[in-house]
Amino acid sequence: MINRIFELQEKHQWTSEELNMAISAVDEALPIALHLVAFEPVFRMQASPELLTKYDALIATRGILGCYLQTELAHGTNVGSLETTATYISETQEFEIHSPTLTSSKWWIGALGKTATHGVVQAKLILPGGKDIGPHLFFLQLRSMDDHKVLPGITIGDIGPKVMMGYPAPDNGFARFDHVRIPKGNMLSKFAQVTKEGKYVRPPHAKLSYGGMMYIRSSMVTGAGWTISRAATIAMRYTTVRRQGERGPDGLEIQVINYPSTYYRLLPILAHAYVFIELGRSVSQAFASLSARLAQGDTSLLAEMHATTSGLKVLATTTGIADIEVARRSMGGHGYSVFSGLGHVYADYVPSATYEGDNFALDQQVVRGALKSLKAFLSLVSGRSLSPDAVSAALSPSTAYLRLLLPALPSNPSAIPKITESRWENPTDVILLLEWRAALVVQALAKEVEAHPSESVSGSVDAGAVQRAARAITDAFVAARVGTMIQECPLQGEAGKAVKGLYMLYLLTSLESGLVDLLSFGIVTSALQQPGTQDVTLGLRHAIKALCEVLLPNAIGLTDAFGFTDWELHSALGVSDGRVYEALWAAAQREPLNAHEVTPAYEESIKPILQRGQRLAGAKL
Amino acid sequence: MINRIFELQEKHQWTSEELNMAISAVDEALPIALHLVAFEPVFRMQASPELLTKYDALIATRGILGCYLQTELAHGTNVGSLETTATYISETQEFEIHSPTLTSSKWWIGALGKTATHGVVQAKLILPGGKDIGPHLFFLQLRSMDDHKVLPGITIGDIGPKVMMGYPAPDNGFARFDHVRIPKGNMLSKFAQVTKEGKYVRPPHAKLSYGGMMYIRSSMVTGAGWTISRAATIAMRYTTVRRQGERGPDGLEIQVINYPSTYYRLLPILAHAYVFIELGRSVSQAFASLSARLAQGDTSLLAEMHATTSGLKVLATTTGIADIEVARRSMGGHGYSVFSGLGHVYADYVPSATYEGDNFALDQQVVRGALKSLKAFLSLVSGRSLSPDAVSAALSPSTAYLRLLLPALPSNPSAIPKITESRWENPTDVILLLEWRAALVVQALAKEVEAHPSESVSGSVDAGAVQRAARAITDAFVAARVGTMIQECPLQGEAGKAVKGLYMLYLLTSLESGLVDLLSFGIVTSALQQPGTQDVTLGLRHAIKALCEVLLPNAIGLTDAFGFTDWELHSALGVSDGRVYEALWAAAQREPLNAHEVTPAYEESIKPILQRGQRLAGAKL
Repeated sequence: MINRIFELQEKHQWTSEELNMAISAVDEALPIALHLVAFEPVFRMQASPELLTKYDALIATRGILGCYLQTELAHGTNVGSLETTATYISETQEFEIHSPTLTSSKWWIGALGKTATHGVVQAKLILPGGKDIGPHLFFLQLRSMDDHKVLPGITIGDIGPKVMMGYPAPDNGFARFDHVRIPKGNMLSKFAQVTKEGKYVRPPHAKLSYGGMMYIRSSMVTGAGWTISRAATIAMRYTTVRRQGERGPDGLEIQVINYPSTYYRLLPILAHAYVFIELGRSVSQAFASLSARLAQGDTSLLAEMHATTSGLKVLATTTGIADIEVARRSMGGHGYSVFSGLGHVYADYVPSATYEGDNFALDQQVVRGALKSLKAFLSLVSGRSLSPDAVSAALSPSTAYLRLLLPALPSNPSAIPKITESRWENPTDVILLLEWRAALVVQALAKEVEAHPSESVSGSVDAGAVQRAARAITDAFVAARVGTMIQECPLQGEAGKAVKGLYMLYLLTSLESGLVDLLSFGIVTSALQQPGTQDVTLGLRHAIKALCEVLLPNAIGLTDAFGFTDWELHSALGVSDGRVYEALWAAAQREPLNAHEVTPAYEESIKPILQRGQRLAGAKL
Repeated sequence: MINRIFELQEKHQWTSEELNMAISAVDEALPIALHLVAFEPVFRMQASPELLTKYDALIATRGILGCYLQTELAHGTNVGSLETTATYISETQEFEIHSPTLTSSKWWIGALGKTATHGVVQAKLILPGGKDIGPHLFFLQLRSMDDHKVLPGITIGDIGPKVMMGYPAPDNGFARFDHVRIPKGNMLSKFAQVTKEGKYVRPPHAKLSYGGMMYIRSSMVTGAGWTISRAATIAMRYTTVRRQGERGPDGLEIQVINYPSTYYRLLPILAHAYVFIELGRSVSQAFASLSARLAQGDTSLLAEMHATTSGLKVLATTTGIADIEVARRSMGGHGYSVFSGLGHVYADYVPSATYEGDNFALDQQVVRGALKSLKAFLSLVSGRSLSPDAVSAALSPSTAYLRLLLPALPSNPSAIPKITESRWENPTDVILLLEWRAALVVQALAKEVEAHPSESVSGSVDAGAVQRAARAITDAFVAARVGTMIQECPLQGEAGKAVKGLYMLYLLTSLESGLVDLLSFGIVTSALQQPGTQDVTLGLRHAIKALCEVLLPNAIGLTDAFGFTDWELHSALGVSDGRVYEALWAAAQREPLNAHEVTPAYEESIKPILQRGQRLAGAKL
């Protein structure tokens, strides 16, 4: 596939944008992605001008094929503990790349197993004398350009299949290095360097290399949106065609989508898709302005962007993974057929919870950032009387919720809106409630951490607290963005009403998923509440149901709007003409197993079973 | 595999119990399961004595291989709407089996695609004159016993693969029938019959055939327990070996299991495994006494057992599906390797949410049963003053929670226990809270249904209400059983403490998962509560954390106790000697892709890519 695409690129003189469209149209994870998304950007951002001159064109034309060797058998997320070493030998001005242990074997490296000729290796830089400077990047050749054989001193192989047939094409591989020498110039030394004599030269800014990771994380919001949109489209179409159970006024069985238990699962997914696609746009814009500032050495937006993208990555991937399965299972038995088209989507998407930063580790970072912001904010406002504008100026979009703690200190919860049934329709109220949740959860967490100062954040609080707080923080940030989306939605008429309805559904279901916090802190109260007899959340649930019923007639239109072709969806259940049973039947007829009426296994094993059985039963049929 | 097992059975004269052990030791879903678990029991329970005489021995010895044809392309759970017809032709005393439409094609039928020679077909019985009597069962031959060819008038094939490589071995198939004639005696007519003249003879009890379905559902509780135990064992072992991140007092990185975000995910899973395995035992006993009564025509326990097994099936499978993935993902990146051993467990287990009754449909049945019980209970106690004993006698184990509504009517919530921190350790309190939740949720649902009498249960209430109520009802039932398990646990000393601790953890996390209800109805209150500042659920969270910390040192012992061999777990991450990295390395070396250093794809496509690139870059390497 890859070779053919590059052949076509040359023939038709495609631009790189056209090439990307062609690759994306193939709709399959391919090893070349690691060259394009991991190896090439890292090399380009961090190689010295000399190294760039030598390899830039070759990398751009795929005259060499690269991979990015970071993860090891025993260490992933914790990059600081990687074991591979790159020892500088000043006598020969070389680095010696070495894998000192089994556990230092590079592992999971995409395109390494069978494809890549070169790679960028993450290894601990060891100076003469043995000083360990920590992980740095080194460029090295892995395979011969004559015959693709692995170079001496290197052991390379494929790490084997992934679960559930996920990512079948990429050759994730392992590598071990036995004192492999590379020239000094092969260190990626645009920022940090080693002198001829073996002295270390620090980079001007420690976090300059974070940009790439943040870019990938922020792009995962858009990715989640489009992944969910595919699942939502297939499930919405199939459950509209499928009829089952009770009969409606027309004498036909009810369309499955019309059961509350179905639309209550699928419409919120559709809302996630719309919100994440739109949110991804605004995050990309924010990232562009960060990049512009970083290029000028201004790192002031870095911490904010790091916290935001970490939280969004967790939210988007957690939601995406769950939504694919919710959509697939909403299709009942046929959802389990490979022709549903959603099995491989899940299998390919589920590692997103781990790659580009394990979600549980990122939650910690979101919470650490929030606690730091809280402390800074409290010390800023302590003993001073600031105007609301001054408070706002002191807070970033991701910490705006902290303003709520100002009037509430020491104890004044009056700013929490009193919710009556009608107000569930008001986005401002719902956003405010979600911000209150974040504020109080973070405040409570800070108290807990304070009470156990000797331990780490995760150790000092109850077990689910970090995840819960991270979610509350990110939900509040996203809710505020969704509020802006509602205000600024350019669509008019029925379409505008439907899309804004989806945005509102996002807010309400986000609130619903945070009900434990909202109730625990007494944020959702009700004048009607009588202990033991009245469900105070009933109003919210009714509001969600009512909104779903308004959205339902437009469900197909809202999914058609994604513009998927049948070829892209590749799903018998999601065909645009609705002839799902014909499509399932046709797909089954094409199965290789059906090429012969009698399976070869008959002579080999079925016949012996039957004959033995008839002999034992004393009956010949 | 199947042929070899039967060969060994004959050679060693295995009993059927020994045969079952051998099949279970193969640890693979095989087509023969459909003969043993679906075809044979249905045939044996419902065939007439004449048909039994003819085929009983052949079925027992596998002289014929059977399947059970129920699901159709357009209908599954709603058996009443199946379209396949069996029309009685009195002239020839035959039935004519026919598939009138594409959507009537039998679909998903295990072992039909390539294996089965015979089958039991679920079809609408049509009497002469056209009267439709609804679904009945008919026995027919599908393939020739001479050469395994499909018999005339029948179209058979395999429906294709399942998602995520689930159930790879079974040949789920489709079948269409074109006016296929079978003798009258082939109707399974132990209960219902058709006379020679074409008159219908009703079965003595309409629900006599429900027993089998309930038996399968109740056995799924035990199945979930053992499935979860496998996932818990692998994840617990790997996260004990794996070290990552912060360094502990010994200078080593912390074992991943010791992070609260890990043990808080894994210990509750372990608790689920223990509870479901033990619960499965008591459900099997209950089922045995039901069977004994049914055999005597006593159907009094049927409704209760139906409601209980429906709810337990939903709880066990929903929990099991989620737990496998929680365990797999707790292992980070390596959890995504096929060598984790959990990918196929998920892929094979996930359809359990749909088969043997779609979980969403079963939820409806649980709730309908509960509303019926509530109504009966209220009319029983209305205007009368019954003793507690009389009330208890009127309630079954699955409706015991309704007793709480008695003193609470019209309005007296005083029986709700006031929870202070220390009382989270008291199982009786926790069980009582879960029963209160069930009582109030069902009571509120009844009010909502009453307010919309014209609609169906699912249509009259908020969208998540049915699922929520079903869960509350089942949780209360299981909690009471767990209370008994704690009381009657025969283990002494450390082991007894640990197992009882797991049972308690089950109760606390069950309560935690029901917090929205418990808070919504004001069941969990706190004297300390000050709106906006205090998290009333903090005590519960601390209790869970404290209990986890007590259990943690025994986590490996508690999983070793399941007695899995390395062969059974088949997981590089779950090896009993803890040498997970060596096992991963060894597994990768055995990969067929690693048999050759240079992949055949090099000549075919990698080399052309590299050469084209070098030509375009004007550089030959």
